[in-house]
Amino acid sequence: MKLLSVNAGSSSLKFKMYEMPEEKVLISGYVERIGSKSSFYSITLNGEKIKKEKLIKNHEDAVNILIDELFENNIIESLDEIKGVGHRLVHGGDKYPNSVIITEDVITEAEKLKDLAPLHVPANLLCVRAFQKLTPNATEVAIFDTAFHQTIEKDKFIYAVPSEWYKEYGVRKYGFHGTSHKYVSKRAAEILGKEDLKLIICHIGSGGSLSAVKNGKCIDTTMGFTPNSGIVMGTRSGDIDYGMIPYIMNKTGMTLEEVDSKLNKESGLLGISEVSNDWRDVEKALKEGNEDAKLASEVMFNSIAGYIAKYFVELEGADAICFTAGLGENASYVRKNVCDRLKALNVFLDEEVNKKTILGEEGLISSEESKIPVYVIPTDEELMMARDTLELLD
Amino acid sequence: MKLLSVNAGSSSLKFKMYEMPEEKVLISGYVERIGSKSSFYSITLNGEKIKKEKLIKNHEDAVNILIDELFENNIIESLDEIKGVGHRLVHGGDKYPNSVIITEDVITEAEKLKDLAPLHVPANLLCVRAFQKLTPNATEVAIFDTAFHQTIEKDKFIYAVPSEWYKEYGVRKYGFHGTSHKYVSKRAAEILGKEDLKLIICHIGSGGSLSAVKNGKCIDTTMGFTPNSGIVMGTRSGDIDYGMIPYIMNKTGMTLEEVDSKLNKESGLLGISEVSNDWRDVEKALKEGNEDAKLASEVMFNSIAGYIAKYFVELEGADAICFTAGLGENASYVRKNVCDRLKALNVFLDEEVNKKTILGEEGLISSEESKIPVYVIPTDEELMMARDTLELLD
Repeated sequence: MKLLSVNAGSSSLKFKMYEMPEEKVLISGYVERIGSKSSFYSITLNGEKIKKEKLIKNHEDAVNILIDELFENNIIESLDEIKGVGHRLVHGGDKYPNSVIITEDVITEAEKLKDLAPLHVPANLLCVRAFQKLTPNATEVAIFDTAFHQTIEKDKFIYAVPSEWYKEYGVRKYGFHGTSHKYVSKRAAEILGKEDLKLIICHIGSGGSLSAVKNGKCIDTTMGFTPNSGIVMGTRSGDIDYGMIPYIMNKTGMTLEEVDSKLNKESGLLGISEVSNDWRDVEKALKEGNEDAKLASEVMFNSIAGYIAKYFVELEGADAICFTAGLGENASYVRKNVCDRLKALNVFLDEEVNKKTILGEEGLISSEESKIPVYVIPTDEELMMARDTLELLD
Repeated sequence: MKLLSVNAGSSSLKFKMYEMPEEKVLISGYVERIGSKSSFYSITLNGEKIKKEKLIKNHEDAVNILIDELFENNIIESLDEIKGVGHRLVHGGDKYPNSVIITEDVITEAEKLKDLAPLHVPANLLCVRAFQKLTPNATEVAIFDTAFHQTIEKDKFIYAVPSEWYKEYGVRKYGFHGTSHKYVSKRAAEILGKEDLKLIICHIGSGGSLSAVKNGKCIDTTMGFTPNSGIVMGTRSGDIDYGMIPYIMNKTGMTLEEVDSKLNKESGLLGISEVSNDWRDVEKALKEGNEDAKLASEVMFNSIAGYIAKYFVELEGADAICFTAGLGENASYVRKNVCDRLKALNVFLDEEVNKKTILGEEGLISSEESKIPVYVIPTDEELMMARDTLELLD
């Protein structure tokens, strides 16, 4: 059975088509800079990646390109072959603890959540509508980025702010990257051969979040009401003292929107290092002696190690620490420096194994004397989406 | 030698007069609601406290009352007997890692820091000026609330925001309550009989902060650029996702100033519980079954335990956890519930001893099997100020 996973960002669209339940990837693609003059897309087929430049005005264009590529590459002969489409929806509010089949009610609910993710929800829904037209016989499924975190209990998701902000306006911790945290925690359970586990999942990409998972259920996560809290990221500040905001507005004359934009797009590794938001550039610079790059890296390591410590205590111990996503899977230097900060928890890496476990390798990277095993587990959000879609189709 | 410690808040003034170096308190007083029609003050002498109502227009009035009481109660016969006055200055920026004798340069520097603490710096300086006039022969000393935290290293005090915010405008972690953290860490060293210690100090009052102290030097603290970050407090939110601010402004029509005021004055325990900012009321309510009071308490306990975990890892272990200030010294329920969250660190209280160690009692409250000893150490900021003043007079 052919299933499609569709992950629409505010100006991007990633997709993967699977033969299920074999979980075989038939084709995948990535449409970037939608709505810009420099838009382009790439297609990966049989291990080969082809990049194509094309004017892609909106998400509907992107969906049409996706469909054209399916035909051109002989993945499908008819649209009826697509039995299900799993859409990543960035926000499920507190309505959706699981993936669901998309009905008009689901779309109405998703629209209500637009204020919580104003850039993403409209893009998500444009794709849903486009597939409803193109593949009316396929089952469309919503996979919410927030769903996995809905098991977090109230004393961990409430902020100490006026209670009407929660009750009237939904201000609470939602958490994001849920599909990845779910995938990695399930994979960790397979590797460790049991379900009743205390896991600390470190999803560290250009965006990043940690989660504390107990017996398969998320009990805490670092992102909060928005994806700009928690650990230091590529361009996002992570946790700050909000009190700097009125101060900086007063000092610089910037508006709140401008400050918010700086905190999302010009902060994090980029803000401190002034080198790049891309870890690879920062690592290169710090190894060449750039002090600001070194400082940026240390502030990021501190933020990750601090949350691991917090979750170790919240979970009352940990059976494993799992690194995933771009940096988590590839940046052995990041993993080493984070774990070096965990001596008090008796966490130790096997440095040689750590260095080698990159580029999609899965494996144990801690040494024998480590009290908590540390794993690298490559994430696969699209596969998790295809699995959820299949489950709802059955 | 008679020394005076003067602690001026935005609308209050606390003072204590000491015979030094004996550290004998001769008289103490607290002037409240300065500038309001309901202003009053209290004087404590020989263990007896007397409250007096009086219109107190400004801090100069408050200083005059203080001096009048010294004469009326026969503490001094002449102003010349006051050899030194230690003033708590809320902000020393990054200029003052220690207490200093107040010169015109110090006042100029302090004035420059006004934007960092707009309510407190002017009140502090009014008192300094008043004493300069009244006791020109006394040595005036500035004891900065931020000084003890100046040993925090850059990777712990920098936020992941655009670097010019730090370089041009001084946005960084400063930390507050430094005099209390210093006092308690020194006292802990006396109790434990050595200086090279890893300490986690929990100053929990209506405002609250934790610090990590290694070999007498602060290496991290929970308050940041402002005193409204870190743990959940009586009316202050502590750490939040700043992203809620533009959202709430948009939803409610409040200005940034109004939201900031809500986060400082109507959040924390009060915000969640809707009962009170005073822990004693919240504890009473939760014991009567009030769910929101229970929730508020749990969110606060989580925030304190989370930072203890973080500092345990930052310090690479801990020789002691010390509770101090209003709740830290008196709220055995808070201490118990915080420590119950630290099982993964093998922290255990002796519940009976914990319950009894209140009202200014100092002592060990952990049980024998606790891997980290837990102490209650009553703080004494005024005494610390008098000691610093004496040291600079010598």
